[in-house]
Amino acid sequence: MSETHFDALETRSVAEREKDLFTRLPDLVVSAIANCPAQASRLSGIDPKSLTVREALAALPVLRKPELMEAQKKNPPFGGFVSNKVTESNTGTGVRLFMSPGPVWEPQATGPDPWQVARAMFAAGIRPGDKIHNAFSYHMTPGGFIMDEGARALGCHVFPAGVGGTEAQVEAANFYQPDVYAGTPDFLKVLLDQAEESGKPLSCIKRGLVSGGALFPSMREEYAKRGVPVLQCYATADLGVIAYESAHEGELQAGMVCNENLIVEIVRPGTDTPVADGEVGELVVTNFNTDYPLIRFGTGDLSAIQADAGQCGRTNKRIAGWLGRADQRTKIKGMFVDPKQVDELVQGFEEIKRAKLHVARDGSSDTMALHVEVAQASDVKVAEVESAMQKIFNLKGSVVVSTNALANDGLVIVDERDYES
Amino acid sequence: MSETHFDALETRSVAEREKDLFTRLPDLVVSAIANCPAQASRLSGIDPKSLTVREALAALPVLRKPELMEAQKKNPPFGGFVSNKVTESNTGTGVRLFMSPGPVWEPQATGPDPWQVARAMFAAGIRPGDKIHNAFSYHMTPGGFIMDEGARALGCHVFPAGVGGTEAQVEAANFYQPDVYAGTPDFLKVLLDQAEESGKPLSCIKRGLVSGGALFPSMREEYAKRGVPVLQCYATADLGVIAYESAHEGELQAGMVCNENLIVEIVRPGTDTPVADGEVGELVVTNFNTDYPLIRFGTGDLSAIQADAGQCGRTNKRIAGWLGRADQRTKIKGMFVDPKQVDELVQGFEEIKRAKLHVARDGSSDTMALHVEVAQASDVKVAEVESAMQKIFNLKGSVVVSTNALANDGLVIVDERDYES
Repeated sequence: MSETHFDALETRSVAEREKDLFTRLPDLVVSAIANCPAQASRLSGIDPKSLTVREALAALPVLRKPELMEAQKKNPPFGGFVSNKVTESNTGTGVRLFMSPGPVWEPQATGPDPWQVARAMFAAGIRPGDKIHNAFSYHMTPGGFIMDEGARALGCHVFPAGVGGTEAQVEAANFYQPDVYAGTPDFLKVLLDQAEESGKPLSCIKRGLVSGGALFPSMREEYAKRGVPVLQCYATADLGVIAYESAHEGELQAGMVCNENLIVEIVRPGTDTPVADGEVGELVVTNFNTDYPLIRFGTGDLSAIQADAGQCGRTNKRIAGWLGRADQRTKIKGMFVDPKQVDELVQGFEEIKRAKLHVARDGSSDTMALHVEVAQASDVKVAEVESAMQKIFNLKGSVVVSTNALANDGLVIVDERDYES
Repeated sequence: MSETHFDALETRSVAEREKDLFTRLPDLVVSAIANCPAQASRLSGIDPKSLTVREALAALPVLRKPELMEAQKKNPPFGGFVSNKVTESNTGTGVRLFMSPGPVWEPQATGPDPWQVARAMFAAGIRPGDKIHNAFSYHMTPGGFIMDEGARALGCHVFPAGVGGTEAQVEAANFYQPDVYAGTPDFLKVLLDQAEESGKPLSCIKRGLVSGGALFPSMREEYAKRGVPVLQCYATADLGVIAYESAHEGELQAGMVCNENLIVEIVRPGTDTPVADGEVGELVVTNFNTDYPLIRFGTGDLSAIQADAGQCGRTNKRIAGWLGRADQRTKIKGMFVDPKQVDELVQGFEEIKRAKLHVARDGSSDTMALHVEVAQASDVKVAEVESAMQKIFNLKGSVVVSTNALANDGLVIVDERDYES
């Protein structure tokens, strides 16, 4: 730990990091195949030794939650995705099991800071010895433990406040005077307000690290005015911290810094195909957690790589944070339509650069129109596209040709139906 | 671990254990004085080297919760009772802080199984690899963590179910099929009933380890009939597991086996003086937790040493479990009266073997009568005792002389006032 950085990993050169990750990837896949039956079956035929560049990784199938949940249902609780060394061991330390909404089950990996949070805390200005009021729940889902294990690994002391019982939380905080709030973005306000109303403001709290909800700019501003600069990290129950903000001045516009020991990709929603940097798509992550190796795990969240490298010295990729849900599968005229099918259609027409399927309603009937982006309108034969639509979707639709760029919002299926009228 | 015992500590001879504990005690006190400012001040003048026998330990003052709470209020959060090495360190792992009702603050000591629970789990028939549904709360108080850390140290997998959300707990348990329930005695019934009502009985649960409430014999019987033998352990937030039941057949009548690495004493409530084995009094415990050394810590609970050595091979002392609250301080005619004062009075009369102060009401006025146990009624000069009462309590009271044994119920002050009429 230096004054400004958690360790040297985050300031190494881009090339060095890339080399490190792709040197370790083959071993990770070997170990996943050896120890996780589900990975052995879905990665059969893959030569792990070939996975030394991004392009090779991109050829592997993205693992999405529906597939994981199906496997977990058949083979509870982890569906064969957690290392046998962990689940079948009855020597050594047992694991914690968590259930997130779905249900999706996750283990707590062994060792300190299994969700890689300490680095995000450091970047938010939190330092060893700080006392942290942890207002994430420790029950069922791993949120509380994610923060707790990270904070303690950093050398911070943690009060597991949990959720609810605001009065008791204020009483506790007034007693032990925490330096830091960790929790959802909105609850900090509840806590500070209640403390003020009770005549004992919690002016001890000097920083906040939040996650699990939207931190609106106005909210961030209010907290700053009340003396609590609040930063956020983007984390999931499966992967831990994927990206985090840096407290360095002027750094917020540069987006969130990706965590170390992760390979982050953005793919076209519903597909396995990476998009160009800057384009909005589904965040796909490969971790190096040998207890629970997730190789190309689709988060179901939309984000985009940002070009701005920031000024804080952290050299890792920046992402835009959470830009919505990537799961755009929907029903049109009673038939399921998947972003994957839109991609399949686009693959058949070299001249189509990008496409979006707009779904609308005409009276009580669904309609669909495929908006396609091309260089010149004359490039595309509309009748052929319509016929491909009929074949792939088993539904009739129209085609709208555009020479302007379609919106970079990660949406492959744009649902314009009004469900309220 | 053998088939029948957690380790060799629990089957060693009584003399061996006693020698071990009193060989380690001087070092514990040296370290407490060196690292815990509050211990340094309250144990000043003590020669740690002298603490090699029970009698020497019995000369140290009992630390009771009011004293601890006062110190914590003055010097939050731990009042100088936790090792500086833990609280002032900002290298290494941070600690968890907990707040129990009072408030009383406790740290989680470093290392695996800091509350010494694994042994109790083993004695209840829980084995490495078992999956545990942990229905203690992880928020604010340490209950959830006490069980969780013990279970994981034993090699069990833990689902942190927490409290509330019965439906979600049933859903979770149906998915991952826990072998063991850990929680309060009553909630297991709620869980089993709800599961049965939903048509998916939790027949996976084969054992229960409960604490934190009364396990009535009828309740234990019902659980056994439903296929879940339930055992209990006696634990506190400060000390962890003090004693536990053994699943060995016919063992329950022998009481609860004291945990290893603890010196357990029973003292006359309100005093520092050990009572004879079998007599009901306040449970006082010395632990060997160098992070949070509690030397003669008064639990505030009543218990008694039992004579029955049991048949399960565990050689440690047996206690009767929880027999009520030891804190009998009360107000008589608006004046505080403390068990300590009764003891002070008894010390002045060699002929009095035991005494109880009965408090009653005459109309709207409090009355007090000191019942004294003597060999022969003529031994005691009633007028002198009455005058001592006046002096010590600053209140007038009567004396009742008895040559029969007074009840062995740990009560020094017997409050017979009817608060409802």
